[in-house]
Amino acid sequence: MTNAEKALQLHEEWKGKLTTTAKASVKSAEDLALAYTPGVAEPCKVIAQDPEAAYKYTIKSNTILVVSDGSAVLGLGNIGPKAAMPVMEGKAVLFKEFGGVNAVPICLDTQDTEEIIKAVTWLAPGYGGVNLEDISAPRCFEIEERLKATLDIPVFHDDQHGTAIVVLAALINALKVVKKEAAACKVVVSGAGAAGVAITKLLLNYGFKNIILCNSKGVISKDAKNLNWMQEKMVALTNPENISGTMGDALVGADIFIGVSAPGIVTADMVRSMNKDAIIFAMANPVPEIMPDIAKEAGARIIGTGRSDFPNQVNNVVAFPGIFRGALEGRAKQITEKMKMAAAYAIAGLISEDELDEEHILPEAFHPQVADVVAKAVMEQIK
Amino acid sequence: MTNAEKALQLHEEWKGKLTTTAKASVKSAEDLALAYTPGVAEPCKVIAQDPEAAYKYTIKSNTILVVSDGSAVLGLGNIGPKAAMPVMEGKAVLFKEFGGVNAVPICLDTQDTEEIIKAVTWLAPGYGGVNLEDISAPRCFEIEERLKATLDIPVFHDDQHGTAIVVLAALINALKVVKKEAAACKVVVSGAGAAGVAITKLLLNYGFKNIILCNSKGVISKDAKNLNWMQEKMVALTNPENISGTMGDALVGADIFIGVSAPGIVTADMVRSMNKDAIIFAMANPVPEIMPDIAKEAGARIIGTGRSDFPNQVNNVVAFPGIFRGALEGRAKQITEKMKMAAAYAIAGLISEDELDEEHILPEAFHPQVADVVAKAVMEQIK
Repeated sequence: MTNAEKALQLHEEWKGKLTTTAKASVKSAEDLALAYTPGVAEPCKVIAQDPEAAYKYTIKSNTILVVSDGSAVLGLGNIGPKAAMPVMEGKAVLFKEFGGVNAVPICLDTQDTEEIIKAVTWLAPGYGGVNLEDISAPRCFEIEERLKATLDIPVFHDDQHGTAIVVLAALINALKVVKKEAAACKVVVSGAGAAGVAITKLLLNYGFKNIILCNSKGVISKDAKNLNWMQEKMVALTNPENISGTMGDALVGADIFIGVSAPGIVTADMVRSMNKDAIIFAMANPVPEIMPDIAKEAGARIIGTGRSDFPNQVNNVVAFPGIFRGALEGRAKQITEKMKMAAAYAIAGLISEDELDEEHILPEAFHPQVADVVAKAVMEQIK
Repeated sequence: MTNAEKALQLHEEWKGKLTTTAKASVKSAEDLALAYTPGVAEPCKVIAQDPEAAYKYTIKSNTILVVSDGSAVLGLGNIGPKAAMPVMEGKAVLFKEFGGVNAVPICLDTQDTEEIIKAVTWLAPGYGGVNLEDISAPRCFEIEERLKATLDIPVFHDDQHGTAIVVLAALINALKVVKKEAAACKVVVSGAGAAGVAITKLLLNYGFKNIILCNSKGVISKDAKNLNWMQEKMVALTNPENISGTMGDALVGADIFIGVSAPGIVTADMVRSMNKDAIIFAMANPVPEIMPDIAKEAGARIIGTGRSDFPNQVNNVVAFPGIFRGALEGRAKQITEKMKMAAAYAIAGLISEDELDEEHILPEAFHPQVADVVAKAVMEQIK
């Protein structure tokens, strides 16, 4: 049986990867009178007077929504809400198992920006946070920004920020290995969707100066055509020398390649054209922009992918469970830039100087402390 | 410590009466590759091709939404979405513990009929059913009717139909005790909101002919003023002699009183004015329309309330868990009138001829077979 067949069979056995479980016992009439009527009226009355008491008496303190519209699911594209559900259930499982955070999967039967914003706004009061997932760019940027502006609970688009945080953590450690400074590095980011834009923004905040963002047409420059509104905004922040051309052109002399784009689009020759001690994160899934052995042979020093069967897996699961756990425990109203940065440092910090080398720049997905240290780092940034 | 204080303290300890629990294990990289990427892509692809496969691979087969807008919560009225959450969590606990049905509590931050319909429509694809709860009348009627017309999963407003089913079950048995025929009985229903209207409709479907529906102003007749649109519709179905006056006037010579209205509004004199072997279900909570001992002394033969500390508790929990379990297992697209009727017969049938008497017309909330027999009865009505 192939792994694909096995996955399908397991999903059929599970019939849903998630259940709801009662914490309150209702085995007797007395139980019922406390957990349900008439006793339940007491917390209702207190919350009606003081809405903040919802954190004291309801699931709001430790339960989030995982919300998608099914428009950009894995590498499968726009498969709609029903077909997106196995992914959102899986994400909810990871929140619980890695971070101890309860999560409810929601796949909305609309792909209209205004309607998604309305739906999440109406759903929000009962829950402690919103993890947006697999919503296509550039709609994801507006949806997240507007929800952050109006809701008083954390809203976090993991495809953007989870990825950005783990990439930054990986770069912090990779630069130690190659002994380069962020500000002096030329970085090429391939892919100008949710992840590429968020990575670029976080790296700029960290101190990188020269980032060249590319989409499938090539380098995003002042002269580039057919950019969406977010890519237009990125022109002012990136590509300081305003170079143009293909992604391959941009890679000449670059120190770092970050791929969140398409399989096989980086060649050995392109890697050879890069600066000495090149760092390559080829995260297209399941087939990377370049296979690690080819990149290595062409002279790259540090290589990461999205896959668990190669060294340096760049996996969001080291970030999002701890981030939401910290945000919920600290009662954060938002996930701020400072919190993301702190999470990246915390993840990077789990690799000791002794362990750190070309093939060990990130903790593994199952690192036992990662959710704890990330949660702690996030909480320290909450005022 | 009072029970109210105890309930509040327990709610603080629980911090939410519900958690999400992973059925899929993610303890190893292999687990992760099956429950999440890349394995999860397999069920996604199958569902994208065949949406019905959502029942095979996702939580849709056994998970429902419990949806409220917080507009008519218990006896507390319009307390809004945050304050309604303890009740919806409690309802979700009862679905799980009594019926084995997973349920997600949703309290919407809107009380606009169109917006509630939109929200539920957008949420529906991922879930197997919708239990509407504590939405004020007459909006609840339109919301339920329109959702039933457009969604392909069961939509059930428990305040209406759960109550109606249990009342009918109780009446089926009560009429056996007093040896009267439904068609010959004069019935007064006090309260023309969600429960009162639904009870009246189900009793008419069962075979009652003479039902007089009253609201707080008195009898609903052709001449009544200030009726909402649903009450206007009920004029044509009820009160065949078109009597008018107070609820007390209607009770003269009545065989059955059904109260889903307000505490203490039925007097001993009113009961004395009723027909011999009067049946009284005084279900206002926590204080009934008339206390059982007073009704008994005034000559009523069978008395039921909503309370667990008196005989004949009319409690929805004997209905809704089994109804949804049956509907989900049988993959019903709707909860039909036939299914409701079958559920009522099934509940009534749990009381054997030997057990049946004035104080034993309904199974208790914790009757071990009730969810099973109700589920089975519902499934038998699915084509």
